[in-house]
Amino acid sequence: MSDDIQPFAEIRMLLANLEGPSSECINSVRDRDRSLTKPPGSLGKLEEIIEWLAAWQHQSPPTIDRPLVAIFAGNHGVAAQGVSAFPSDVTQQMVANFTQGGAAINQICKTHGAGLKVFELALDKPTHDMSIDAAMDEREAAATFAYGFQAVTDGVDLLALGEMGIGNTTSAAAIYTALFGGQASHWTGRGTGIDDRRLRLKIDAIERALRLHKNHLTDPLEVMRRLGGREIAALMGAIIAARINHIPVVLDGYVVCAAAALLHRLNPASLDHCLAGHLSAEGPHEEILSYLGKKPILNLNMRLGEGSGAALTIGLIKAALACHRDMATFNEAGVSAKTAS
Amino acid sequence: MSDDIQPFAEIRMLLANLEGPSSECINSVRDRDRSLTKPPGSLGKLEEIIEWLAAWQHQSPPTIDRPLVAIFAGNHGVAAQGVSAFPSDVTQQMVANFTQGGAAINQICKTHGAGLKVFELALDKPTHDMSIDAAMDEREAAATFAYGFQAVTDGVDLLALGEMGIGNTTSAAAIYTALFGGQASHWTGRGTGIDDRRLRLKIDAIERALRLHKNHLTDPLEVMRRLGGREIAALMGAIIAARINHIPVVLDGYVVCAAAALLHRLNPASLDHCLAGHLSAEGPHEEILSYLGKKPILNLNMRLGEGSGAALTIGLIKAALACHRDMATFNEAGVSAKTAS
Repeated sequence: MSDDIQPFAEIRMLLANLEGPSSECINSVRDRDRSLTKPPGSLGKLEEIIEWLAAWQHQSPPTIDRPLVAIFAGNHGVAAQGVSAFPSDVTQQMVANFTQGGAAINQICKTHGAGLKVFELALDKPTHDMSIDAAMDEREAAATFAYGFQAVTDGVDLLALGEMGIGNTTSAAAIYTALFGGQASHWTGRGTGIDDRRLRLKIDAIERALRLHKNHLTDPLEVMRRLGGREIAALMGAIIAARINHIPVVLDGYVVCAAAALLHRLNPASLDHCLAGHLSAEGPHEEILSYLGKKPILNLNMRLGEGSGAALTIGLIKAALACHRDMATFNEAGVSAKTAS
Repeated sequence: MSDDIQPFAEIRMLLANLEGPSSECINSVRDRDRSLTKPPGSLGKLEEIIEWLAAWQHQSPPTIDRPLVAIFAGNHGVAAQGVSAFPSDVTQQMVANFTQGGAAINQICKTHGAGLKVFELALDKPTHDMSIDAAMDEREAAATFAYGFQAVTDGVDLLALGEMGIGNTTSAAAIYTALFGGQASHWTGRGTGIDDRRLRLKIDAIERALRLHKNHLTDPLEVMRRLGGREIAALMGAIIAARINHIPVVLDGYVVCAAAALLHRLNPASLDHCLAGHLSAEGPHEEILSYLGKKPILNLNMRLGEGSGAALTIGLIKAALACHRDMATFNEAGVSAKTAS
């Protein structure tokens, strides 16, 4: 028993000792911003993004020389309950599609000059069906969390997170219901586009899972191992690894935010280095983001996953940084400053 | 008198004879979209953008080989009323900044691989002060509208429109009040960031202008010449020239939408080839867009002008097109299609 508890204890210790932002770098960004040839504040969110980048990279000006999109892919025992419009084989097939450059995320990364890494999590061995058993044991859950640290490699200065996994919106919906309460149906969306019949199967599987595990859902790490998929555990690790390594994170949509919500419940400050890339059309994502205290950068009615919503923000963030670094100052351009009022 | 009426008559004729979208190209885009390795509809607004591009370029797949940002710059007699935080010299100084590559719009264009053209409209000779006289006579207004056609040059396949002009949010606010009714104060924002004292001067100048011209404001072209600036007249021409030349248009914020609103009042269908690039933080831009029947792509609390909000969408549109053109189909990637329900 003590062997089993050890791994989660380490995660808890990590989360209790997270570094904050650099207020010095925020001030340095604000000083330069005031000198640039534009009315103060007129670039709105773009200015906030640069403050955020500098604060969490702990450098001013910040960089986006090596933005990376990391996708974690997992398979889910609960898929056997008929909760998805696609068979579980599609997880592996889409990983092959990522590798061959044929998916949406490949085109978005190419457009915005971002790297892409895909992490497969034992796709041939789905997690246990959460409606029958815990998805993972503690040792596996903790090891998968630790595996997420691999998303952080040398020189990466912005991390956008994505996922792929047939059945994973079912897992995410179960996590939201466990964390936030209320009816499973409230938190559940149509994933890949399921019909009413499959939606009933999906909600039913979530309700059975919540009944089965009901005495163990006050601890977010127990929620993660019982209801989560491997990609969700690994995403939690990736978010924390990025924080430790001074890499700001852009969260994707509904499934990535389930990992974020688990971390938020463990320590709300653990997401301070994360921006919400977009508002997903899956489930009540707006309400979820509001629980996390986040406002999405984009709202494009997307619900694809793969990190697609997060990756789209890289173009905006690059443009924001180009403005901050390369605009002329009032002095350099010989532009008159504000007249006295 | 008949000499004076002729120029506006030509504009009215142009607007009465506008070509519609290509429904054949929309269908062709939809056919391909259904074959791509993603759940149908999961790219949301990105899919709609590609349909829109194809419909108005009259080609499928569409292209974005030569996106152009066109900025029209004008000076305003009404600036003499103390309506801006910056002196009128700043218009010319910012044009020089654009030319030297030091402004925000230069960095955004560079980031997204867009061309930039700046059109100066007799900056040393501001329009008449609308609170004392009509800003332009009909001949000049029509000639400036026609000048806007220069934004459309060979090979341009997407046009993002911007403006620069100290005093032009005053002109735009007067136009909105004339077109949509209600109090001038409702339609007026703080432009470059004016204080309460200047805001009162601004609203007062608009109210005096509306009283002076009140018997001539049912005709949108009269509104344009009496209250508008040259950049607003030229932007109207640029929007129509793009339509005629099968070039989709991305509108920028508060001032560009004043040109759009005048066209919309003349013929609501004249904006069907235009997307709203962003929701500006200037004035009640959301209400203005709703009058135009547009939903903004971005909402980043920006209020800079220069076409900055419109230009930021070019990265998104390029990513959308890359997905549409370069994603693998289910067949190509060997990805299983939806299972039967």
